[in-house]
Amino acid sequence: MSSDLPDTPRTHISRLGDRQVFDRDALNAILDSATIAHVGFVRDGEPIVLPVGIGRDGDTLLIHGSTGSPFFRDMSDGRPLAITVTHLEGLVYARSAFDSSMNYRSAMIRGCASVVDAVDKEQALHVITEHLMPGRASEVRPHKSKELAATLVLRVPLTEASVKINQKMPDEEPDDGDPRTIWAGVLPLRVVAGEPLSSELTPTSTPVASSVLALRKQLS
Amino acid sequence: MSSDLPDTPRTHISRLGDRQVFDRDALNAILDSATIAHVGFVRDGEPIVLPVGIGRDGDTLLIHGSTGSPFFRDMSDGRPLAITVTHLEGLVYARSAFDSSMNYRSAMIRGCASVVDAVDKEQALHVITEHLMPGRASEVRPHKSKELAATLVLRVPLTEASVKINQKMPDEEPDDGDPRTIWAGVLPLRVVAGEPLSSELTPTSTPVASSVLALRKQLS
Repeated sequence: MSSDLPDTPRTHISRLGDRQVFDRDALNAILDSATIAHVGFVRDGEPIVLPVGIGRDGDTLLIHGSTGSPFFRDMSDGRPLAITVTHLEGLVYARSAFDSSMNYRSAMIRGCASVVDAVDKEQALHVITEHLMPGRASEVRPHKSKELAATLVLRVPLTEASVKINQKMPDEEPDDGDPRTIWAGVLPLRVVAGEPLSSELTPTSTPVASSVLALRKQLS
Repeated sequence: MSSDLPDTPRTHISRLGDRQVFDRDALNAILDSATIAHVGFVRDGEPIVLPVGIGRDGDTLLIHGSTGSPFFRDMSDGRPLAITVTHLEGLVYARSAFDSSMNYRSAMIRGCASVVDAVDKEQALHVITEHLMPGRASEVRPHKSKELAATLVLRVPLTEASVKINQKMPDEEPDDGDPRTIWAGVLPLRVVAGEPLSSELTPTSTPVASSVLALRKQLS
């Protein structure tokens, strides 16, 4: 799990290559702290990009959708996918618009999906649920057969991935302006969770689930 | 600006179509509150998905990159693009894993980019800067000619877009479990800004820029 990612022509980043990292742990960290990815594929010669919830299962990435989704059926036929996860972590304010940028961690995974078969589907969905809502799987009832049948789970190997990380202060050129009057720096950004909102059928006396409280604390 | 979006075969959402909206104001709101989009295109028959900063200029979307970026040169040649913006707004905890989902607002724009020519480039970059860092343009020096020459700005018409919005409580089935013991509801998510961090050359006596303070307040 701590092996380096291969530097292939397909994953090599030519532009701002100093931001590329080949550390599999960095890739895993990006995926593990992500809720959604943007999956791209080609349909009728044109690109499609969809947001999907993800889960990581070792050296594979799992995504799931409805068997009724034409897009998921497209993705399931083995055509090439590009799966990109981006954490926007800050706005970088230079003293010039040109040098202003963003701090981020991102990964683009390239590969083809295989359909998770019936035998492994429930376990794969468990991994996805625990990825998206840690601790929730044990709080809810098991899947029904018809629910499993209505769900398509796809698995993509984490073999080819471009990981790009930018976490720094702005470039500062001497002629950009006076640092005593023009501020430069970073405005950090992060995702936080708010107050949990109970559903209509949930009495006010029902305690908020442990899984929800734990994630809320993590995202505080 | 308040005209409806067309419902074309390319933009029609077949799966969970009740979440689709055709309101241009909803599209504009999604774009205006977004910092990045994920842009998909086809290269050598395979999909590529990149995170890029965006700006909205009326009924067009602007993206910019380096003239040295092979990917930006690809995108500039008129090939079809899919540009997707997603705001993840909450995790929806049902009493079953199957009915658990996410609240979000998302838009996928489909179209081809044209290159913004030299005459209009500075104004287009102004729009992008003001989109990403409102108020910043007047705090920093103007672009230098060589910076403008090194920057590629692409414009995509906001003609074909699929907008999908899910903002609701979980589905609740009577046999999913006891609402008195199993909590269901929504954990809201949002992006917030942290304490601004000054760059190395910025003295501690330099006041944090008004633009930064305003955005921080907006994202508090």
